[in-house]
Amino acid sequence: MKGIRRLAEHLDISIGTVSRALNGKPDVNEETRRRVLEAAESLGYVANQSGRALRKGSTGVIAFMMQTGTEITGQGDTFFMSVFDGVQTVFARHKLDLMVLLCSSEEDPNDYLKRVVARGFADGIILSATRRHDKRFELLDRHKIPFITLGRSLSDVGQPWVDLDFEGMAETSIDRLVAHGHRHIAVTRPHDDMNLGYVFVDRCREALARHGLTLDDGHVFRSTPNQAGGYQIARDLLACKERPTAILLVNESITIGFYRGMEEAGLRPGKDIAVIGRKSPHSQFLSPRLTCFSLSLRDLGISLAESLLATMPAYASLYPNRPQRFLWPMELVAGESDEFTLG
Amino acid sequence: MKGIRRLAEHLDISIGTVSRALNGKPDVNEETRRRVLEAAESLGYVANQSGRALRKGSTGVIAFMMQTGTEITGQGDTFFMSVFDGVQTVFARHKLDLMVLLCSSEEDPNDYLKRVVARGFADGIILSATRRHDKRFELLDRHKIPFITLGRSLSDVGQPWVDLDFEGMAETSIDRLVAHGHRHIAVTRPHDDMNLGYVFVDRCREALARHGLTLDDGHVFRSTPNQAGGYQIARDLLACKERPTAILLVNESITIGFYRGMEEAGLRPGKDIAVIGRKSPHSQFLSPRLTCFSLSLRDLGISLAESLLATMPAYASLYPNRPQRFLWPMELVAGESDEFTLG
Repeated sequence: MKGIRRLAEHLDISIGTVSRALNGKPDVNEETRRRVLEAAESLGYVANQSGRALRKGSTGVIAFMMQTGTEITGQGDTFFMSVFDGVQTVFARHKLDLMVLLCSSEEDPNDYLKRVVARGFADGIILSATRRHDKRFELLDRHKIPFITLGRSLSDVGQPWVDLDFEGMAETSIDRLVAHGHRHIAVTRPHDDMNLGYVFVDRCREALARHGLTLDDGHVFRSTPNQAGGYQIARDLLACKERPTAILLVNESITIGFYRGMEEAGLRPGKDIAVIGRKSPHSQFLSPRLTCFSLSLRDLGISLAESLLATMPAYASLYPNRPQRFLWPMELVAGESDEFTLG
Repeated sequence: MKGIRRLAEHLDISIGTVSRALNGKPDVNEETRRRVLEAAESLGYVANQSGRALRKGSTGVIAFMMQTGTEITGQGDTFFMSVFDGVQTVFARHKLDLMVLLCSSEEDPNDYLKRVVARGFADGIILSATRRHDKRFELLDRHKIPFITLGRSLSDVGQPWVDLDFEGMAETSIDRLVAHGHRHIAVTRPHDDMNLGYVFVDRCREALARHGLTLDDGHVFRSTPNQAGGYQIARDLLACKERPTAILLVNESITIGFYRGMEEAGLRPGKDIAVIGRKSPHSQFLSPRLTCFSLSLRDLGISLAESLLATMPAYASLYPNRPQRFLWPMELVAGESDEFTLG
């Protein structure tokens, strides 16, 4: 028992009267109102927002759904925390709180989100880890819950989205490696059906085709998004009959493991194999320095939050003309890991 | 407008009747019930848990409050994500969902938690980043919200807690370094008033005193919990008039920065200065290998969750005899970074 019921029992007054007194309704006499407010103060009463949410239709909470699990965040996270930092910067302007919904990889994300919707505590939702087909979009659309996705999908209900420019990464990398004389280029993709894997591999294939080259199916390596996954890719690459001379690592959390796997085989990135990856807080400490694609995760978070608010009636006027769907550019930072030219 | 009101308007039936039909009350005729259930299905109605929470007094949600911010999680997190993994393992048994509350370092944690309490959406709360004096304990106690703290504080309302054994780390490290001949040992602590800084530095001082040594106030380095902080400690250490020959790094996210600062000055851990730290997913890739204290973060999360549930009436019988307050041991893993003995 808590909140208003406790107050009412303490004062031996009806819940309705206590509620009217707390909400400043005129039909409560002053002596009663004074008693209620004093008791509320001394008992530390705080209005239960569940009730408020039902009445006002808003909770002041925006939820960010991310995927967790031993294979995904088991070694920590160097992506979302920085994105959250940017999201919070925007929400702080409006006294909105960010809440992170951790969906374990062992759970169906759609079932998980159904519970979130049922609980009704978020005014808006940011979805990440978008899949090739993603039922979550339709669920939120049906319930008229404002949302934005970090990532695209073949599923599309017209919602706003922001996605990293994996196409740009594919084109720039392939052109660069081909210019350095590489003909057998390997690429990586997530182990599951994240949409980005399809986008990235398809565009790599197209870019190679422009140069009259093909992507060998045996040179597309799937891995979990962690260092163990990177290490496994190194092993798989070493086992190839025709070994690629270059590789694009699409995930930023696999590089250290990949380097280690190469090192164990006596191969040095930038000398024996060209490597292009994604920047992480740790990539600057790698030797040789990684040639990588970099972006400001904090700015990405700011952009995500503003584009979401632009679709919510209460905030839309503050964020006019926000683009509703856009690719976030990544910048190539040249390092030492792809510094070699083939004959 | 959503949920039950929308259903009622669609059917042109009163909200009360729709509610009774959905909740299986007997005083609704079968034809009406059938119509309500069909409409609920076709309109994608999901019960609003805000209303449920008010009636049932439980939400199925446990919140974990953590501190974020550019200086704290700006380079990612390698601690909490693994703890969450353990917590979720326990909650999954009971269909409880874990929700992470991100409190920006720019905000007062007490004000933040007041809003969380007001929203009333969590059945229980796990607090981290406990301060020397922490008003949050009293707030939750007053509102009778079950909670556990990851960390201690001088504030104490009798709540359960789990904390890392910083005392054990201090004792073991000091004894080890003194046995290797060190007389001038430096230690680190957080830049803010986290309780662990007091516990750790005090116990280091006591352990040194047992050996007839003192801790020089100029050899206690404060830093933010990130690699930039570790780098700054290296600079501060190099600027000391009487340079310490050994250092204990209490935080796991400062080691790479500290190593880099030493390297730039031409000093090698394990040769020119003895370093003992905490294990992180990246410490195994450091050269020389870090002598460090290790713990299973996932098991810590499991323990935190079980000890919290043991205090909640709905789950207490499932977790009998759980210790309510305990130090989590850390194991010393010998590396190369403290491998040298002074004359």
